[in-house]
Amino acid sequence: MRISFINDYNSAGHPDIINAVLAACPNKYIGYGLDEESEKAKNAIYKLIGNNNAQVHFLMGGTQTNLVAISAFLRPHEAVIAPKTAHIQVHETGAIEAVGHRILTAETADGKIKPQDIRSVVQQHGNEHMVKPRLVFISQATEYGTIYSLEELRELRKTCDELKLLLYMDGARLAPALMSERNDMTAQDIARLTDAFYMGGTKNGLLFGEALIISNPDIGEDFRFFMKQKGGLPAKGFLLGLQFYHALESGLYFSIAKQADTMAGILTAELKKAGCPFMADTYTNQVFPIINDDIVRLLERDFLFETWERVSETMTCIRLVTTWETTSEQISAFVSRYLSLIKI
Amino acid sequence: MRISFINDYNSAGHPDIINAVLAACPNKYIGYGLDEESEKAKNAIYKLIGNNNAQVHFLMGGTQTNLVAISAFLRPHEAVIAPKTAHIQVHETGAIEAVGHRILTAETADGKIKPQDIRSVVQQHGNEHMVKPRLVFISQATEYGTIYSLEELRELRKTCDELKLLLYMDGARLAPALMSERNDMTAQDIARLTDAFYMGGTKNGLLFGEALIISNPDIGEDFRFFMKQKGGLPAKGFLLGLQFYHALESGLYFSIAKQADTMAGILTAELKKAGCPFMADTYTNQVFPIINDDIVRLLERDFLFETWERVSETMTCIRLVTTWETTSEQISAFVSRYLSLIKI
Amino acid sequence: MRISFINDYNSAGHPDIINAVLAACPNKYIGYGLDEESEKAKNAIYKLIGNNNAQVHFLMGGTQTNLVAISAFLRPHEAVIAPKTAHIQVHETGAIEAVGHRILTAETADGKIKPQDIRSVVQQHGNEHMVKPRLVFISQATEYGTIYSLEELRELRKTCDELKLLLYMDGARLAPALMSERNDMTAQDIARLTDAFYMGGTKNGLLFGEALIISNPDIGEDFRFFMKQKGGLPAKGFLLGLQFYHALESGLYFSIAKQADTMAGILTAELKKAGCPFMADTYTNQVFPIINDDIVRLLERDFLFETWERVSETMTCIRLVTTWETTSEQISAFVSRYLSLIKI
Amino acid sequence: MRISFINDYNSAGHPDIINAVLAACPNKYIGYGLDEESEKAKNAIYKLIGNNNAQVHFLMGGTQTNLVAISAFLRPHEAVIAPKTAHIQVHETGAIEAVGHRILTAETADGKIKPQDIRSVVQQHGNEHMVKPRLVFISQATEYGTIYSLEELRELRKTCDELKLLLYMDGARLAPALMSERNDMTAQDIARLTDAFYMGGTKNGLLFGEALIISNPDIGEDFRFFMKQKGGLPAKGFLLGLQFYHALESGLYFSIAKQADTMAGILTAELKKAGCPFMADTYTNQVFPIINDDIVRLLERDFLFETWERVSETMTCIRLVTTWETTSEQISAFVSRYLSLIKI
Repeated sequence: MRISFINDYNSAGHPDIINAVLAACPNKYIGYGLDEESEKAKNAIYKLIGNNNAQVHFLMGGTQTNLVAISAFLRPHEAVIAPKTAHIQVHETGAIEAVGHRILTAETADGKIKPQDIRSVVQQHGNEHMVKPRLVFISQATEYGTIYSLEELRELRKTCDELKLLLYMDGARLAPALMSERNDMTAQDIARLTDAFYMGGTKNGLLFGEALIISNPDIGEDFRFFMKQKGGLPAKGFLLGLQFYHALESGLYFSIAKQADTMAGILTAELKKAGCPFMADTYTNQVFPIINDDIVRLLERDFLFETWERVSETMTCIRLVTTWETTSEQISAFVSRYLSLIKI
Repeated sequence: MRISFINDYNSAGHPDIINAVLAACPNKYIGYGLDEESEKAKNAIYKLIGNNNAQVHFLMGGTQTNLVAISAFLRPHEAVIAPKTAHIQVHETGAIEAVGHRILTAETADGKIKPQDIRSVVQQHGNEHMVKPRLVFISQATEYGTIYSLEELRELRKTCDELKLLLYMDGARLAPALMSERNDMTAQDIARLTDAFYMGGTKNGLLFGEALIISNPDIGEDFRFFMKQKGGLPAKGFLLGLQFYHALESGLYFSIAKQADTMAGILTAELKKAGCPFMADTYTNQVFPIINDDIVRLLERDFLFETWERVSETMTCIRLVTTWETTSEQISAFVSRYLSLIKI
Repeated sequence: MRISFINDYNSAGHPDIINAVLAACPNKYIGYGLDEESEKAKNAIYKLIGNNNAQVHFLMGGTQTNLVAISAFLRPHEAVIAPKTAHIQVHETGAIEAVGHRILTAETADGKIKPQDIRSVVQQHGNEHMVKPRLVFISQATEYGTIYSLEELRELRKTCDELKLLLYMDGARLAPALMSERNDMTAQDIARLTDAFYMGGTKNGLLFGEALIISNPDIGEDFRFFMKQKGGLPAKGFLLGLQFYHALESGLYFSIAKQADTMAGILTAELKKAGCPFMADTYTNQVFPIINDDIVRLLERDFLFETWERVSETMTCIRLVTTWETTSEQISAFVSRYLSLIKI
Repeated sequence: MRISFINDYNSAGHPDIINAVLAACPNKYIGYGLDEESEKAKNAIYKLIGNNNAQVHFLMGGTQTNLVAISAFLRPHEAVIAPKTAHIQVHETGAIEAVGHRILTAETADGKIKPQDIRSVVQQHGNEHMVKPRLVFISQATEYGTIYSLEELRELRKTCDELKLLLYMDGARLAPALMSERNDMTAQDIARLTDAFYMGGTKNGLLFGEALIISNPDIGEDFRFFMKQKGGLPAKGFLLGLQFYHALESGLYFSIAKQADTMAGILTAELKKAGCPFMADTYTNQVFPIINDDIVRLLERDFLFETWERVSETMTCIRLVTTWETTSEQISAFVSRYLSLIKI
């Protein structure tokens, strides 16, 4: 069997989490997320973000969370501003348009949108013949594994305030971002500086589940109606609550992200040492080396990974994703094989 | 703690299923339902329905399955015909309208729509100033726990063929329906007589998951696009596949439904013996006794259940749901308490 | 050629209006309703409704006006309450569902919804598993030609205030309603008691056009975006403005409606004298006599009208619509023929 | 009053057309476009396009036509490919997204999309995580006044056939395109090479109205339902039919477009003679000279026109639109003023 660096959702979940679910089998819960496990998880999140007044909702996956949130936050003529590489733009099959909203995109070098990008989009939209930009969509970490700094987030907030825009953060990979060695923001910063964001569970040890936090009291009214209407209010909401509660309370939510980041750091360092170029710096658990096509083909015999994009006629950027399950041996195996191949 | 007859989704799932998930922890899977567990589950379903050509898709919950399926099957001007008691009409927050379709309802005595109801709706819609009826939505078992007979299903099919309508079955509680003592249809019959139907997992021992089967080759084109667009293509699709595979292969899917039905049968018989009237006959795992309001209030001290609807000034219909976890002792406890209360 | 009582939109428009359009040919106007003719028409409406702060928008037709207004006023989980006979329910091809909203209907005897109907719908909707009733849709005149009294409108307003609902009036036939001998409300009353309403032009002498008035300042934000997005912001908005201005300033808007009502009154009186029964009282320009099927067939040789609904095995309700073009001779011709036929 | 080159929808319409409407006042028509005038207009169009089997529908405006057509032709996961300058992308307030579809755009030099642009978009969309490109949207003339050649249209058709895409042409300014001196295609070519297209009336002498022609028999099923549902089936459809019939039968539809083109040609030639640069070649009735900002400001005192886009720090592209009402004197006045200003 090939060693997998394919993604961070290729196994069921962390055994501790699944054991927690198993242990709860004898319990009886109220449906639709109104149970005590969800309450405990909410409280754990309140503690984490330092805000007891935010709304916290548990949903099943990232696309679902994005479309439910955005359809609840926007009126029909309002549009989203997002990096051209944003997941909602590239890999969610028009989910946002399907609920009626246009996505206005900005080119970015590294998956991170800048105040001037936002300003530029807004300046091009001034009357009723055009959609009205209303929400800025960012990801932390981004699709390139990069992260915003606290200063950058503050600037985005300032820009949004000035232009009367909402700021929404897709945190499918928020834990690896928060645990990044190069990160300087806290969950409290995020809760304070965004109008809403979500903390991913599916890619971070849970079976599945995302926790949406709405800090802005003006935008979340009747949110549970939207969840139900879009098929995102699971009958067994308690399963999401108990997973998040366990992951947060035990510290697992952050420790496994840390572990994934560490492995990515080692992998990057080793490849750099070997002279390998990268498409983007490594900040979190995604590594983007640029490798000769012939070598890519040979590496694919022993390792599972995605080819990300063609860089030149002979070189391809591939994506290596590490997780809490990635071992030092797997890293070494990859690096050794790479070294042996480039020597030929 | 009160004894729960509140619903069939109040505990995590059957321990065997969760143990199967736990056992799969070391495995690595391809994402988005393209894995071998999903393949095995599909094959198990093909065997069950006797049709290798149907499409099988695994989704996360009932509302999601209904809205994804209906939005994929209908064009924007087409409408759904459903019993007034249908889940999509009563308890899905306008999910079908939110994807653009009107639901045309028919009154029913027992949750079951009849050919003449369908015909009557169609006759009232004849031109472009009205929506065009196109899909008949039925549930097996219905919201009242009743079930269609094979003959009734055949008649619905015939009516749909004649009127060029699709027939879709919501099978959130299909297993208890198939296991009902009074059932005379097989999964093969259903697959042959409907255009699409789903087999519920969430209410039948799985953590969550529903299996949608599309037999009609004309309506399911590009179905995975719809799943993704509506947030219903989980990254860890393999979790759904492996649960369904385990439940079907082990026989658990049917044995636990049988157990739930049996318990409901006993509960009904005991209450009948005590002279209790019912709003609907018991066919599956839902029991609808009509009880004096004062007694209902006293029963609520020891038992959890839903009040269904007011029947007269002094009497209320309540809903008691049994599951594979319901014990004879719990049934006896309820009946004894009821007996002691009506004697006062 | 048969004499037409078929509807009130079967000729181009009043020649005075069309002549006003013709006279404007040499003029140049700004596009999209921002011209001086539209301004003058708005001022005429402000005068009529006694409110200079309302928003006034000109749209092209009734279905368009209803769907643009409702999609602008409601959030995705909110629903409309309407009489079962409402135009949006019966004859607009699911336009409201197509923009995502359910219509919750109430049975009515005469097309008029009552406070208790509204209350009853609201009471059945209490949580996030159901849509949230938010807007009451009424028509003045109704589909049956009946009209609400001022007292009835006040009661509806009170009910809406109590239940936090918006009140919207479809005024496709508002002019005949206001001119009805039995009417006791003014345009000022309507503007004060509803959140929004529209004054029909298409069925009242204009080529086409409806004037939407939004009195509630909380619901119309960015309304022109919605008009444009739904295809309801005509490039030549000035054509609507100048027609409405001319019709209102000249008094034509009300005089031709009065004329239509008068003709309907005479027709009703004559038929009553002949012993003809009616399905609904005549208030405006629609008359609903109940006539023997054989006679209906014979009347159809000389007169154009719609058969409305079957009343018994031998009797049918037909609809006779009068307009400003209906003459006494046409009325006499119909009545004479009816008299001669019932004598046989 | 300033001389207007602002657009081609700034006056009511051609007096002959309005007189035709006035003359029809005494007539009685069936509603909703089922009348004999609409029939005659359809036959005139059949003759023009040499195809009696196409569907022909009359709608009220361009945005409405585009959104009704596209929502009828596409399934929810399918997307539109369009030039970045397309009207649906730039000036229709997200109308296409509001009916659920993404627009995928291609940069163009002159408003004209090329086969390789289409191919490139399609190549980037290959699975269910992305929308599925399905319809290519082009305009004839384009937003830059340019036109496709017959050869170019043939190539687009070939590309669409190869990639299983529909080809739709927005013909808001089709008449000026067909009358262009540089045009080499006929209405028959367009009907044969596109799946659907519309012939604009609003910008070409009619009060308002667009004629949609659907040649592809596979995509227009139940089209009138879509028209009604989106508010685009006017009660007085006969008004559209009779305007189109009159304009086509009298030849006015083409003669006034020819006149507009001729004026644009003269204006262009005169300005070129004066050394004025242009952003795009003049093909139809839109002229795009690039003028010094100071001169633009002075021209604005006497002439009405739109500033199109900034070209450099001191130069701006403006848009001058000619119509059948533009006179030689107006052209001369503009050119003289321009000449006098550049001399300073």
